[in-house]
Amino acid sequence: MEQLKQRILTDGKSLEGGVLKVDSFINHQLDAHLMMDIANEFVARFNNGEGITKIITIEASGIAPAIFVGYLLNVPVVFIKKSKPKTITTAALTTSVYSFTKDKYYDMNMNAEFLNANDRVLFIDDFLANGNAALGVLDLIEQQKAQLAGMGFVIEKSFQKGYKRLKEKGIKIVSLARISSLENCQIQFAE
Amino acid sequence: MEQLKQRILTDGKSLEGGVLKVDSFINHQLDAHLMMDIANEFVARFNNGEGITKIITIEASGIAPAIFVGYLLNVPVVFIKKSKPKTITTAALTTSVYSFTKDKYYDMNMNAEFLNANDRVLFIDDFLANGNAALGVLDLIEQQKAQLAGMGFVIEKSFQKGYKRLKEKGIKIVSLARISSLENCQIQFAE
Repeated sequence: MEQLKQRILTDGKSLEGGVLKVDSFINHQLDAHLMMDIANEFVARFNNGEGITKIITIEASGIAPAIFVGYLLNVPVVFIKKSKPKTITTAALTTSVYSFTKDKYYDMNMNAEFLNANDRVLFIDDFLANGNAALGVLDLIEQQKAQLAGMGFVIEKSFQKGYKRLKEKGIKIVSLARISSLENCQIQFAE
Repeated sequence: MEQLKQRILTDGKSLEGGVLKVDSFINHQLDAHLMMDIANEFVARFNNGEGITKIITIEASGIAPAIFVGYLLNVPVVFIKKSKPKTITTAALTTSVYSFTKDKYYDMNMNAEFLNANDRVLFIDDFLANGNAALGVLDLIEQQKAQLAGMGFVIEKSFQKGYKRLKEKGIKIVSLARISSLENCQIQFAE
């Protein structure tokens, strides 16, 4: 997605240690019109959302792109919580995920009522890096015997192993900006 | 907002201890079209957004209504983080907030670059209860000598002290559904 790549080059910052900072427009301060454009692109690349009954994302940075996709497809959006709120009183659907960035495990929680065997899910998130969060979501979907339509990421760090791990499972992956390298703090896109 | 009140009566659940559960359409599973309607209502009730340069909210449940308001007004949306991410490398703007629900203090963090003295801020959140989070946001705004245009809440628990505390500070408050009582697990709206 050319507009997104240009914006990453203009406003993104590549920090030491392979960190791509996009907090001025994607994951702290948000450009809502860019998010709508991103959502339109996801919808187009997932067959205009054909057959999709639910959008799933993870709090907090995935919510903005996911809610616009849900708006365009007119289907519910569920965001997975990293802590278990007291309002999940009934069946909690849960899985444990290792965070490479934070070097610790955390739980992903959702209310099991919001996902069932009739659902066909599109998972949307801001970043694909090692793929652990995405695999956690896949686990939740499999626990409920729901179907996965595919996974859409705003930015993919193609030099990390997430893409390969998801691809091996036969998942349809759409990443709108694929970054092949952040070496020497230079942002390089994959072809 | 009549549509919202009807939805709360249909899909909301009032639990023991004054908990209003709206996780099937507002703060876990999200109805994106309802969120857009909510955003339109906020815009109308804040003079079509006149003079507003920025929307501020708090992760995670505030993001959905806030991003649609930002979309309609075409201004940036910043969500305050409850943990300090490593990408906030420069000046972090921070304040400590007491959570009545969790009975503990937590920090609200944002990148100070995203709020300055020229900003006129509309704060949007899902719930107004005791008002501690809203007062924390007011502190951040005052630290940066920015202006507050007002605060918009999807649901106000009018029987808690938040409304009074904010009103005493002369803040313009718009709550789209005002709940006067949850006694005996019955949802009562204020006039």
